[in-house]
Amino acid sequence: MSPYVTVTTSEAQGTTLGERLHGLVAALGAAPVRSITGDGVRATLEIVQKAVAEGRGTAEIPFEVHEVPSGTPVLDWTVPKEWNVRAAYLVGPDGSRVVDIADHPLHLLGYSVPTRARLSLDELRPHLFSMPDRPDWIPYRTSYWNENWGFCLTDTALRALPDGEYEVVIDTTLTDGSLTYAEIVLPATEPAPAGGEPTEFLITTHTCHPATANDNGSGIAILTELAHHLAALPRRRHTFRLLFIPGTIGSITWLAQNRDVVGRIGHGLVLTGLGDRSQPTYKRSRRGDAVVDRAAAVALAETGRPHRVVDFSPYGYDERQFCSPGFDLPVGRFGRGQHGEYPEYHTSADNLDFVSPENLAESFGLLTRIIEICERNAVWRNTSPYGEPQLGRRGLYRAIGATMNRQAVEMGLLWVLNLADGTHDLLDIAARAGIEFDSVTAAVDALAGVGLLVPRDAVSPEGTP
Amino acid sequence: MSPYVTVTTSEAQGTTLGERLHGLVAALGAAPVRSITGDGVRATLEIVQKAVAEGRGTAEIPFEVHEVPSGTPVLDWTVPKEWNVRAAYLVGPDGSRVVDIADHPLHLLGYSVPTRARLSLDELRPHLFSMPDRPDWIPYRTSYWNENWGFCLTDTALRALPDGEYEVVIDTTLTDGSLTYAEIVLPATEPAPAGGEPTEFLITTHTCHPATANDNGSGIAILTELAHHLAALPRRRHTFRLLFIPGTIGSITWLAQNRDVVGRIGHGLVLTGLGDRSQPTYKRSRRGDAVVDRAAAVALAETGRPHRVVDFSPYGYDERQFCSPGFDLPVGRFGRGQHGEYPEYHTSADNLDFVSPENLAESFGLLTRIIEICERNAVWRNTSPYGEPQLGRRGLYRAIGATMNRQAVEMGLLWVLNLADGTHDLLDIAARAGIEFDSVTAAVDALAGVGLLVPRDAVSPEGTP
Amino acid sequence: MSPYVTVTTSEAQGTTLGERLHGLVAALGAAPVRSITGDGVRATLEIVQKAVAEGRGTAEIPFEVHEVPSGTPVLDWTVPKEWNVRAAYLVGPDGSRVVDIADHPLHLLGYSVPTRARLSLDELRPHLFSMPDRPDWIPYRTSYWNENWGFCLTDTALRALPDGEYEVVIDTTLTDGSLTYAEIVLPATEPAPAGGEPTEFLITTHTCHPATANDNGSGIAILTELAHHLAALPRRRHTFRLLFIPGTIGSITWLAQNRDVVGRIGHGLVLTGLGDRSQPTYKRSRRGDAVVDRAAAVALAETGRPHRVVDFSPYGYDERQFCSPGFDLPVGRFGRGQHGEYPEYHTSADNLDFVSPENLAESFGLLTRIIEICERNAVWRNTSPYGEPQLGRRGLYRAIGATMNRQAVEMGLLWVLNLADGTHDLLDIAARAGIEFDSVTAAVDALAGVGLLVPRDAVSPEGTP
Repeated sequence: MSPYVTVTTSEAQGTTLGERLHGLVAALGAAPVRSITGDGVRATLEIVQKAVAEGRGTAEIPFEVHEVPSGTPVLDWTVPKEWNVRAAYLVGPDGSRVVDIADHPLHLLGYSVPTRARLSLDELRPHLFSMPDRPDWIPYRTSYWNENWGFCLTDTALRALPDGEYEVVIDTTLTDGSLTYAEIVLPATEPAPAGGEPTEFLITTHTCHPATANDNGSGIAILTELAHHLAALPRRRHTFRLLFIPGTIGSITWLAQNRDVVGRIGHGLVLTGLGDRSQPTYKRSRRGDAVVDRAAAVALAETGRPHRVVDFSPYGYDERQFCSPGFDLPVGRFGRGQHGEYPEYHTSADNLDFVSPENLAESFGLLTRIIEICERNAVWRNTSPYGEPQLGRRGLYRAIGATMNRQAVEMGLLWVLNLADGTHDLLDIAARAGIEFDSVTAAVDALAGVGLLVPRDAVSPEGTP
Repeated sequence: MSPYVTVTTSEAQGTTLGERLHGLVAALGAAPVRSITGDGVRATLEIVQKAVAEGRGTAEIPFEVHEVPSGTPVLDWTVPKEWNVRAAYLVGPDGSRVVDIADHPLHLLGYSVPTRARLSLDELRPHLFSMPDRPDWIPYRTSYWNENWGFCLTDTALRALPDGEYEVVIDTTLTDGSLTYAEIVLPATEPAPAGGEPTEFLITTHTCHPATANDNGSGIAILTELAHHLAALPRRRHTFRLLFIPGTIGSITWLAQNRDVVGRIGHGLVLTGLGDRSQPTYKRSRRGDAVVDRAAAVALAETGRPHRVVDFSPYGYDERQFCSPGFDLPVGRFGRGQHGEYPEYHTSADNLDFVSPENLAESFGLLTRIIEICERNAVWRNTSPYGEPQLGRRGLYRAIGATMNRQAVEMGLLWVLNLADGTHDLLDIAARAGIEFDSVTAAVDALAGVGLLVPRDAVSPEGTP
Repeated sequence: MSPYVTVTTSEAQGTTLGERLHGLVAALGAAPVRSITGDGVRATLEIVQKAVAEGRGTAEIPFEVHEVPSGTPVLDWTVPKEWNVRAAYLVGPDGSRVVDIADHPLHLLGYSVPTRARLSLDELRPHLFSMPDRPDWIPYRTSYWNENWGFCLTDTALRALPDGEYEVVIDTTLTDGSLTYAEIVLPATEPAPAGGEPTEFLITTHTCHPATANDNGSGIAILTELAHHLAALPRRRHTFRLLFIPGTIGSITWLAQNRDVVGRIGHGLVLTGLGDRSQPTYKRSRRGDAVVDRAAAVALAETGRPHRVVDFSPYGYDERQFCSPGFDLPVGRFGRGQHGEYPEYHTSADNLDFVSPENLAESFGLLTRIIEICERNAVWRNTSPYGEPQLGRRGLYRAIGATMNRQAVEMGLLWVLNLADGTHDLLDIAARAGIEFDSVTAAVDALAGVGLLVPRDAVSPEGTP
């Protein structure tokens, strides 16, 4: 269990944080079939909204649902037609339903066009998807941008299909409608810094996967919980913007419609796959050394538990869009197992058993720690940079000289004073000093408290920096 | 055998590339004694010119021989007097010729001044050079800048010389004449890039060593063959300038007389010692990270065979001049064994047996691959840098989503789009992506084909970059 | 023994350098109790001045003693009251003096305020300092900035104290007076370089520790000896400024009163703990790559003996002040054992037996070598940078070509010519070439002697750089 978990307000509610997150993943898995558009997405967002609105003593959390019409040009793309499913099944030669979306939401190829047909098994085969090497799992397949239809089923079921004529019933609609996403904005409680640096923290998760628990019920659940956590913070230096968006087209749509916001993003995280057994994993932004990249490395390392920090690559989730070269935003990705590296990925085996309350809670704790470090990180300026200031008369130094049992806090004071020259942020200082980030912030608090530190861009009392 | 060898036109001629190169080394070894000036150099260049003119279906290759008069000031140096040899021998006490240049071109100290003398063996000794640790080899020695004369012979022969009076006959001339070098210029077939970057590729080899096969018959042969290879290319982005020059004074002379060309050199290679058994070796330019340096490292590494990439040092061959601090050109050196590290270096043992057709062919293949990479390397710009462009509608993406067997080509597409921001060249992209250079160029071709990439300095259709 | 020791003038005097340094440490240990101010400091400086004035054939060495009045504001600090000790002892219940500063100067807590009191043992205990883990050593403790009093004694003695009433007699004065430090300035003998780079070399040592031999009798002795060494040099490119100052407040006071000098400091060293058995240790300046940092690394490495080069940290001696962010001077620290890492640190066991003549002499040799390298280091410019200059006609190259037994000096010539482009100093060249610093300087001397090198900022004969 992460040390940070214990400081959340969760346990006060009678269930543990992990149990609450796991319960929300379960609720999301029971929602109607969802895809990148359609009523399934809306139902999902209603679950989220309800969970967000369940006041647990915190202030009201704004929750805004956006509908962007089909056909809207968004960057290089176009918002697609809206897809909805009433029913989808395959009737076998003996009249029984051999595959039915009512049994499992993965049975239908995502974005299957409306289809009614009678086909022989051989004619049908190109529309049937299974996993021969995992014969009891149903694969998850989609065809968003190429009109097609099909069914996904276990390889065992596929092999058992007798020859004969099959009836295809895909009662879907693919019509002009809209793309639906939700946004929670929690404004900063502190005034913007004088230096004009970006002040928003963007955190996103994708909402388009049907039923699968880790990818990405876990992301939706954790982002929902995060809204409570952030709303309850006594102070927020950043404005937090939480996005529940369909993958790829959702981030593209949001980016296209929020070009003014983009320039204010100082940190960002894409959340995916946070409940599985893999070690916590952070994927760096394209920049590689953004504050969020360095903060995540510290947050994962200071646990002393196994973890991974991996370099950016242009394959993955919505970080691909945020880190496209035109935007090049400081947005990393946080989760556990990475797409494709665990066999359950994009299959029916990514179910509620695959995610655990403990892993969800640990991921949540690490996420809030990354955020906390970004919130605390700043560039300070020593107001007494010529020689060391006399700490003793300010009560910050031991009275009897020449003992060697230096306290970490004293080394923190000295390192911060030495490196607070307006060019090093607190993460830099912690790294160079080889001391804990929290020792650095403790030193900052003590020194700022006696006026020996001011924010980099602060104007000194005499009016000169 | 290098994979690149198989794509040359060689085999179509009935002899293999390696055999043809080896045959040219043999022909060069049978030429008259050559040094940094004189008729031996002219005879050597005639052999080259004849080999170049042997059309094998390619366009006519211009071959220009330059004569620079003795006494011409060139940088810090002066073109020396021209040296020619009619005969040179040493007559022993019994009247027999104990050393004779007619037997081996290394027997005469290079640039020996005309001398006729009768001397005792003791008086003669300071003018006799042998290798006591290799008693059967004749060393190669010269005295270009200090007037002197002497004979080189095996230590066995030296030890067998009886006391008595010897007659020295050195029938050379050292008179005002000229320094001779040859130049092949194959112009670019493509328009110069808008960015104005250097557009010439300089490749040089030294012509001054008498008879020795690896150093540098191999270099002359390979540069000769390269002229055919380059002339046969359907497209050349660079102008290729091939120099056959005497070592040191040749490059100094060329640099002094081509100051206007120097600024156009974008890549360069000095070729030496390409037929011996040592592993292929690239020596970086003084800059260390020039395109040719990075291209050579890729070309050698992608073979999967042993090779070396070594740092620049100011000792070696003509790269010393090209990489002098005033010029600091991006010129590396390519070959196999390095001067001095193999015992046969600068001795009569550097003979035709010391170089093999296989090693010559492998070196040639690597050389053409280095050149190919430099030709292909460029800086491109993604024309749709905000978010990922929709590859599917351009036929560049798989139709059925969510499978994980990503093709290398798709990763190539994504990496190129992500890093084609006008600051990374293709070698940078291959290195950061960890993918083959050819996968990168395949992606570039595909993306440029649909207008998603343009050269960095291209003007966009709207007239803005 | 360091090779540099043998070149000093020491042995000519009849005692070895090590013995002379050890004798001076002994004399300094016998001086009155010294602290950061007071007559003990003055007596110490008189010993130094006498040793400096003992002419050994060298020019007169200026020795200036400064007195800065109590209450003077210095940076963030104030010059403290002056402290002097007439007597200090503790009388036990039986009337005997159980602790007396007359027995050992460490017995009194430094800066103890005048006190006369009768106290029970329990009341006395908070004012008694011992080392339970080293029961026979007296600790060294001070209370400069917090008015207090106390005695330091062995733990054995402390444990033996009987219950009963004790009489405290601390006959000190703490009154307005001054802080005393000394300065030796040896001006450069060469004209300042045209480039205007900083031209002073600052070397400091602290004078405030009572009696302890390594920390810092060794520093005072070696800085004293260095004055002789530097005064005897035939040429000095830098002005050398040697400071004998109390720790912390001394450097702060000097910095406050010499703001104009600060900008001229090109190199600096703080000397501490130079006689103990630890390996020679250099602590880098805050910059980390200052000339003195690189010179010290070379000087220590070229001995081939164990040594340490450690990174800057803001804890230690007066380098803390010189490397505070406002000044950020290129000042490192040189010594052997570091504060706190050897048990004798700040105890009565740091006595004359703890320092050896051999270690003192080795430290001195290394110090003078670091200084020598800084003196020799410079940025030169090749006056013939286009191609290699012809070394042969300048007598700098072998006459018979093509031998491979290259002399280190020839490689030095080639490397210096290649890298003397106005951007690399000699330390850079030695590092990149992988050759000895002295080989580089030998090459520089040879090349400058024939006009092929000039200082970077020299104006060429034609009036153009």
